[in-house]
Amino acid sequence: MPEASQQPPIDFYFDFSSSYTYIGLPRIEALALRHRRPLNWKPISLGAIFKERGHAPPGKDTAKGRYQHLDLIRCAAEQHLAFLSPAVFPFNSIPAARGFLWMQSLPANRAVDYAHRVFDHAFAAGGDVANVETLCDIAKDCGADPAAFALAIQSPAIKAQLVELTAEASRRGVFGAPTLICDGEMFWGADRLEQMDRWLFK
Amino acid sequence: MPEASQQPPIDFYFDFSSSYTYIGLPRIEALALRHRRPLNWKPISLGAIFKERGHAPPGKDTAKGRYQHLDLIRCAAEQHLAFLSPAVFPFNSIPAARGFLWMQSLPANRAVDYAHRVFDHAFAAGGDVANVETLCDIAKDCGADPAAFALAIQSPAIKAQLVELTAEASRRGVFGAPTLICDGEMFWGADRLEQMDRWLFK
Repeated sequence: MPEASQQPPIDFYFDFSSSYTYIGLPRIEALALRHRRPLNWKPISLGAIFKERGHAPPGKDTAKGRYQHLDLIRCAAEQHLAFLSPAVFPFNSIPAARGFLWMQSLPANRAVDYAHRVFDHAFAAGGDVANVETLCDIAKDCGADPAAFALAIQSPAIKAQLVELTAEASRRGVFGAPTLICDGEMFWGADRLEQMDRWLFK
Repeated sequence: MPEASQQPPIDFYFDFSSSYTYIGLPRIEALALRHRRPLNWKPISLGAIFKERGHAPPGKDTAKGRYQHLDLIRCAAEQHLAFLSPAVFPFNSIPAARGFLWMQSLPANRAVDYAHRVFDHAFAAGGDVANVETLCDIAKDCGADPAAFALAIQSPAIKAQLVELTAEASRRGVFGAPTLICDGEMFWGADRLEQMDRWLFK
């Protein structure tokens, strides 16, 4: 059996404003570990993809929106995850995504730690992760320099990186999050992880 | 424990053009049996509900539409169900729904037999169940008089019944199919049946 590092990765497209990415995250990480696949975290701007494709999340006051809120509460409970809707939703997840990209340039697994904290702050604590000060505090908690973080998320290179990842996702047919692509097969949604798991065992 | 007939029913809203109802149907029937709940089959016009709510199924040539086709193939395979997309899709499911309502007025479980045959003809054989002659043949295979069937699906009473069921579904917050409502709790989708199963065991 090849080393874990030699196995083709799982490309993991996500957006920090995706509730179902929060719900699926522990199982996504477990899936990659179980199959000895590197998890290739790829933040995108789902808002840009929705705009391009003419999609929109269901409104809070629609039948689908109300059901989705109930479904999130049920799914979180089944996964033994805390769940509290962010005070503002949907929110601007672009600063958080740019911050993640900068954190990836730091040593150790700081970006992954940061991602967990951002998702938990948004969906377990109902916090506001569109707020740059909040993100700087989270970066600091992960051992990063908050001033450098604040500068980095305004840098043209980081901005361009997020644009490029979003374009890459769009080219590959991504239309929602979480989306996982492995060995050319795409799986969308926190409710298709078991399907992907069975597929990877084949 | 009360008799099965005394347990509150599971209201089952479906549309004959719903691929995921076809995928979920064997598990929906098993769920009702396991929990000794009568299954209250309620055909609706999902097209009318989509129109009212401003929803639309994903186009075949969109990223979401292509993924959904792949997902249906995967989900059918997991359930050991044949799957072949209807030649024309989406199709007009209103004649099939009206026919079901008339079959419900006949003795024995002819309507359920009819529903299975219509779903199988559409999604296992890729047939055209918008065609009234095809529906008459199916009705005949279920032991019903095809001429009476053809007349019945044009009757004002049957038409009004479908309109009323669709309005009832809409009032209760239905926005897709399959939708199951039991003891005031709603579950949507062939991928929430296990969740409903666990909920019913509580």
